[in-house]
Amino acid sequence: MVQYSQIDRTLAALADPTRRSILERLGGGNATITELAEPFGISLTGMKKHVRVLEDAELVTTRKVGRSRRCSAGPRRLEDVQEWTETYRRMLDERLDRFAALLERTRGEPHDQ
Amino acid sequence: MVQYSQIDRTLAALADPTRRSILERLGGGNATITELAEPFGISLTGMKKHVRVLEDAELVTTRKVGRSRRCSAGPRRLEDVQEWTETYRRMLDERLDRFAALLERTRGEPHDQ
Repeated sequence: MVQYSQIDRTLAALADPTRRSILERLGGGNATITELAEPFGISLTGMKKHVRVLEDAELVTTRKVGRSRRCSAGPRRLEDVQEWTETYRRMLDERLDRFAALLERTRGEPHDQ
Repeated sequence: MVQYSQIDRTLAALADPTRRSILERLGGGNATITELAEPFGISLTGMKKHVRVLEDAELVTTRKVGRSRRCSAGPRRLEDVQEWTETYRRMLDERLDRFAALLERTRGEPHDQ
């Protein structure tokens, strides 16, 4: 049985263009569900669902203020996502370097003996 | 209707710990489906499904060699994921800076007048 962790929830939450746009909007300043829903042209129910997914991934915090729900970006700041992608890219780079070095050595060897 | 793009498929493909481990394994060197399935302790059918998701996201390339299917990392190298996460974090940093500057100004103001 696969155990899903925080980084899995984060990546799944980010894998939707509307949810990434919501984060970009909240990166500029806090907003209520209603304020978020309007420019995106989606229903309050639809927006609540997206915000809930972002909240479960700890990418958004919400709190009730009077009759509305105020959303802010954070607390998670994608450190783990950045770390994983960076490690993976470094791995690919090192492999390319090894391959290039191998090619270099092969070129240097005499072919006709 | 939401249009899903390449970065959505990439993030969804990465949102699974087994698929990230497959990429790490392939980052070290190519492998067949059978070679991949064994250490992960999952069925060939299960591994084929994971590899297919990675292939659709262009994170893995496969080619038939004899009776087996050889998998390699790439061609995609997560540039777009890194770019998005970096932009988002910068946005949050700038917001924190503005907040700190505001706090500083407020502190500098006389309170008892």
